Amino acid sequence: MEPVFPFALVLPRPAPDGLTRALHQQLRAAILDGRLGAGTPLPATRRVAAALGLGRNTVVAAYDLLVAEGYVQPRTGATAVVADLAHRRGSRSPHARGERRLDPAWSMPELQPETPRILPERSFRLGVPEHRLFPHDTWRRLNARALRRWSRAPFGYPPSEGLPELREAIARHVALARAVACSAGDVLVTSGAQQAFDLLARLLVVPGRTRVAVENPGYPPLRAAFLAAGAQLVPVRVDDEGLCVDELPDDVRVVSVTPSHQSPTGVALSLPRRRALLAFARRHDTLVVEDDYDGEFRFGGRPLDALQTLDREGRVFYVGTFSKSLFPALRKGFVVAPEWARAPLAAVKHCVDSHSDAITQMVLADFLREGHLARHVRRMRAVYDARRAALLEAIAGPLGHWLEPMPSEAGLHLAARLRDPRDAPRVFAAARRDAPGAQPTLDYAVAGVEPEPALAFGYGVIDAEAIAPAFARMRRVLLR
Amino acid sequence: MEPVFPFALVLPRPAPDGLTRALHQQLRAAILDGRLGAGTPLPATRRVAAALGLGRNTVVAAYDLLVAEGYVQPRTGATAVVADLAHRRGSRSPHARGERRLDPAWSMPELQPETPRILPERSFRLGVPEHRLFPHDTWRRLNARALRRWSRAPFGYPPSEGLPELREAIARHVALARAVACSAGDVLVTSGAQQAFDLLARLLVVPGRTRVAVENPGYPPLRAAFLAAGAQLVPVRVDDEGLCVDELPDDVRVVSVTPSHQSPTGVALSLPRRRALLAFARRHDTLVVEDDYDGEFRFGGRPLDALQTLDREGRVFYVGTFSKSLFPALRKGFVVAPEWARAPLAAVKHCVDSHSDAITQMVLADFLREGHLARHVRRMRAVYDARRAALLEAIAGPLGHWLEPMPSEAGLHLAARLRDPRDAPRVFAAARRDAPGAQPTLDYAVAGVEPEPALAFGYGVIDAEAIAPAFARMRRVLLR
Repeated sequence: MEPVFPFALVLPRPAPDGLTRALHQQLRAAILDGRLGAGTPLPATRRVAAALGLGRNTVVAAYDLLVAEGYVQPRTGATAVVADLAHRRGSRSPHARGERRLDPAWSMPELQPETPRILPERSFRLGVPEHRLFPHDTWRRLNARALRRWSRAPFGYPPSEGLPELREAIARHVALARAVACSAGDVLVTSGAQQAFDLLARLLVVPGRTRVAVENPGYPPLRAAFLAAGAQLVPVRVDDEGLCVDELPDDVRVVSVTPSHQSPTGVALSLPRRRALLAFARRHDTLVVEDDYDGEFRFGGRPLDALQTLDREGRVFYVGTFSKSLFPALRKGFVVAPEWARAPLAAVKHCVDSHSDAITQMVLADFLREGHLARHVRRMRAVYDARRAALLEAIAGPLGHWLEPMPSEAGLHLAARLRDPRDAPRVFAAARRDAPGAQPTLDYAVAGVEPEPALAFGYGVIDAEAIAPAFARMRRVLLR
Repeated sequence: MEPVFPFALVLPRPAPDGLTRALHQQLRAAILDGRLGAGTPLPATRRVAAALGLGRNTVVAAYDLLVAEGYVQPRTGATAVVADLAHRRGSRSPHARGERRLDPAWSMPELQPETPRILPERSFRLGVPEHRLFPHDTWRRLNARALRRWSRAPFGYPPSEGLPELREAIARHVALARAVACSAGDVLVTSGAQQAFDLLARLLVVPGRTRVAVENPGYPPLRAAFLAAGAQLVPVRVDDEGLCVDELPDDVRVVSVTPSHQSPTGVALSLPRRRALLAFARRHDTLVVEDDYDGEFRFGGRPLDALQTLDREGRVFYVGTFSKSLFPALRKGFVVAPEWARAPLAAVKHCVDSHSDAITQMVLADFLREGHLARHVRRMRAVYDARRAALLEAIAGPLGHWLEPMPSEAGLHLAARLRDPRDAPRVFAAARRDAPGAQPTLDYAVAGVEPEPALAFGYGVIDAEAIAPAFARMRRVLLR
């Protein structure tokens, strides 16, 4: 079939903000950067709908938006044409004028933040830890103490790498909790793991040239950071042993991976795969970004060594975060960087925001040094373990006919695959109704590449005793 | 004269980390990105020294560093040659290997953070406010209250744009303090002004294409953010009325400017220049980044309208910060963005670090809403005013023979130009000894373009009564 547009138009599936918005954005980007020149007639909605597998109403709605914004000129009784934006300078549409000044990279659909879902307070949502058992009193006490210390010190600009006492405390923490070998000098404090991804993407990617392997399905905000830095993403399949290392193309310069607890399938990267990945990196002179976002919570099995621990050549950047072990709004994460990359990484951090806020760093350093983090993780591990057990039981019991848990020994969520992929639409619909927050792993997939259907369930903010009733309700719906 | 290298080599003058390091870095970058290929003989140190106006020892030291790092192969009795880095793969130098994987943009000398200067607690340093009079008790009380509120709320990911109550409070604050017309929806909370520069640079710059006008002299970290985003910088002269608007080349797409209090000369952009800048922007469809970093502190004269206030076309991004009115380590700043740019700007923020830490945002919102910021600024204005008066008196008195103050009515520092530029080396040397923290505006200049010699003095952390004695000591040295 002849292409309907003079460029590749791939819509993300599923489209988090709807297909209309996705289509509208891609067409607008094409008009803004000149791929669709002024005067070009738009193809008929019927043709576009057929070619892209969309409902015609979706295409009509996207066209209507473009007309409303002035990007497209409607013609009575004829096809609409792309408007002449140059002629519209000085017109009263600062919106359209302004957008032409932006780096068009930011109109990529993958870079549009998802509209946050409205969920009940207790739900199966992923990636959010329990607030009810957080040691708020301790946190408050350490805060007050840090502020008293703070009030006696002159103001100034703290080091970009982070406060020395926090870097020291993090080095000790990851050595004990994850056997990551490092000293304070190797640690760079970041504003959450997301900033770590952004800093690494900017440091490691030569825009337009560097190919970066990402897990598929995988964590979309990490992909966004690499895309925004100009990387060419190469999605690589994930199975029950994690990233399919033997499917890595030779020319990727960076491999990003979640070895402890794959996001979102929850599987661990097996030891043979870990060895194979490091051998691949050695053979092809590749760097590795190891995202260990919730590996502190382990529920059995011997923990596998971190890639950083196995690495002898300074190829692994280990990214950690306190978003799951403490709370996301704290915005504190870190990178353990190979020695050779420390100075340039600090230069990137210095350039992007100078440093992370100092008082929170002081509080966090004390929290770690006094053992409160270790204590909290120990306590929460037991809580999450009970929820996880209830979840596994409910999957095997009421939903055993439809779902099969994927192997997972860590973290704050686990996934279950559909025993029969054809059941996916019905099971997903039942989950939307009765297990709010549960998410199809498809939501984490790279546009156009669909993984096997599976559902991920978080147990950060659901009570153990609420799980079986929710699954019983799903079962009743599915048996109907 | 024939060029000594096959590419333009411009060293920053003055070089903050020394000329050896600057030369070393530029040569290393050229070797890494292939401009100096393997086997190329390095030109003789004597020739390089003559061509670049350096001492021969400086060149020898830079070459020695390259040899030590393995980038250059020494040859007995002959010129050294660039090493074959490809052959060194698998050798035991992960350092050199790794660096070849980085985006070479980060080896630009402008992107290397300055080594922080060691200064006494009380000094003339620029850009740091007084800590002794900060309302630490109030801050602590609001902190405790915010943490109690926090302990009752579920965890989650706060909005990328900032907490609604803080955006509301900032909108009211800038409306009152700076007559900036905006609503909460126009405000994006950032991790300090530096992050605002980074977000805007990434949003507005198409890498390798967008030309951005910057003040010369001007704030180096802002230049770093635009350079790192791939901008082509166009330095534009500054005189006693601020940025020389009529020297802006027609093809700049973004103009960055400090209208309230030029950094570092302290002058204000005159009203005719403000009008001319907005007319320029209209004529050439240009966007403006207005950096108002310490404009809250005004000491007389009628405040000039912010560019944002005068702008009728949605061309101005107004950047504010609490680093000078409160303290730098707070890491809180903001952008007031034109309506059309709000969503894409939030997308950039979402991509780079998801959001700024929430508890500090809560505290800051309360601090603003309850009037503590306005009160603190009022109080500090009187304190800084007294220091500024003492400074002006000391410049006119003991140093009147050498220095002439440049017009300045706001902020935490002012500058004084040399009456006779030939005195610059002696006066700078005297200041280094007796007025620690004072900085030649040359330190803020774009490499290779020297502004008229002047010295900037901060009065954020110097006592009024310490100023005259320091200047008297300088005078004695200068009269010797």
